[in-house]
Amino acid sequence: MAHTASHTTMSRDMEQCIQECLNCYSVCTVTAGHCLDLGGPHASRQHQTALLDCARACQTSADFMLRGSPMHARACALCAEACRACEQSCRSVGGSDPMMQQCAEACRRCAESCERMAAMAA
Amino acid sequence: MAHTASHTTMSRDMEQCIQECLNCYSVCTVTAGHCLDLGGPHASRQHQTALLDCARACQTSADFMLRGSPMHARACALCAEACRACEQSCRSVGGSDPMMQQCAEACRRCAESCERMAAMAA
Amino acid sequence: MAHTASHTTMSRDMEQCIQECLNCYSVCTVTAGHCLDLGGPHASRQHQTALLDCARACQTSADFMLRGSPMHARACALCAEACRACEQSCRSVGGSDPMMQQCAEACRRCAESCERMAAMAA
Amino acid sequence: MAHTASHTTMSRDMEQCIQECLNCYSVCTVTAGHCLDLGGPHASRQHQTALLDCARACQTSADFMLRGSPMHARACALCAEACRACEQSCRSVGGSDPMMQQCAEACRRCAESCERMAAMAA
Repeated sequence: MAHTASHTTMSRDMEQCIQECLNCYSVCTVTAGHCLDLGGPHASRQHQTALLDCARACQTSADFMLRGSPMHARACALCAEACRACEQSCRSVGGSDPMMQQCAEACRRCAESCERMAAMAA
Repeated sequence: MAHTASHTTMSRDMEQCIQECLNCYSVCTVTAGHCLDLGGPHASRQHQTALLDCARACQTSADFMLRGSPMHARACALCAEACRACEQSCRSVGGSDPMMQQCAEACRRCAESCERMAAMAA
Repeated sequence: MAHTASHTTMSRDMEQCIQECLNCYSVCTVTAGHCLDLGGPHASRQHQTALLDCARACQTSADFMLRGSPMHARACALCAEACRACEQSCRSVGGSDPMMQQCAEACRRCAESCERMAAMAA
Repeated sequence: MAHTASHTTMSRDMEQCIQECLNCYSVCTVTAGHCLDLGGPHASRQHQTALLDCARACQTSADFMLRGSPMHARACALCAEACRACEQSCRSVGGSDPMMQQCAEACRRCAESCERMAAMAA
């Protein structure tokens, strides 16, 4: 994506948001598998759904931005909500597990970035 | 999906909405290729983006519902907006082309179904 | 999709395969959540991965066919393998659970349909 | 993803391949929009399909690796083929357009990385 910047009119904010979305998607997907290994509340339907919702919303949000869609701010708003829910689930279920803390951090950063994108277009 | 109904507690409204989303996704994806063949305004970035946005939003909305996500109404709200935008683009670009009329109809039905799902959870 | 047929040159076999893929994607996604509720081996990483792999491969295969991609047979071949692995996992983990039997059936039908598409293009 | 490495047993090769896939997905999606703006052969169905096939295959391949799927090598093999087809399409259609050259490069790097992953598991 560093390459992409120089040839498009995409703003730096949007480029950073795309990166946060793809990172958060990646971390949530890895974490979902890790949590199935841990079992117990980590493998609960509630927590797994939060992780998969967030992963899907991040992919969708990145996709709308990469396409230069006029609706990207709406997709970012959905993504920010899914990220906040997943951050909360990771903090509540995860205790001191380092992957859960890392996942909560990725969700928080992505939520903040998406909230900025959503607010810009409002 | 007819099979699915009997073994889950999924409401009939939600099942129908999932079907509308998967149908609208399918029709928009087929239509996007058809429009590239037609060229001209059908192959414009604006119209293709409306079709691909709608296809992606429909997949996301179906996915949240199939997972039984507590955030499905939010995903349906995004989907309804993308469907309305795509319906409008198909009507404006399409003239009397039968595939464009069919796509506009699929978008309208999916938008209405998603609007109902979004309103139920509000 | 019934609507789609009349306006495109898509073969009946391909249309049926797209339907099997979207149905299998739907059933696997619903089943993954159901299995998290059941817990135990149903919520194991191995079984959940088989379900999510299959769901993703089905989406990808449907997508390639809907786009009329020259590579759709390759995507169908991947999908058929993921369906066979998921069918086996559902039969091995599922015992007499009706959703697992239904999921195994959806996987089997989709695998057979995708194998036909893959063979046609070979 | 740099963060992910320290907490998982994922190999460096796989991590790099995931990054190449997400980069290639991003570049192909941006390039597809750019090519619709350019029109002519850039907006042809053949070239757009090559770009969208590649974008979808890259997402699928990254997804299988992030889930630690036993079938990731198969998904990487599909991705490598889609990348090679898209690289060729970009070189054939693109002439000296810098975004097309960049896209061809992203496809080539991703193809090579996916080919390594596919060969490792064979």
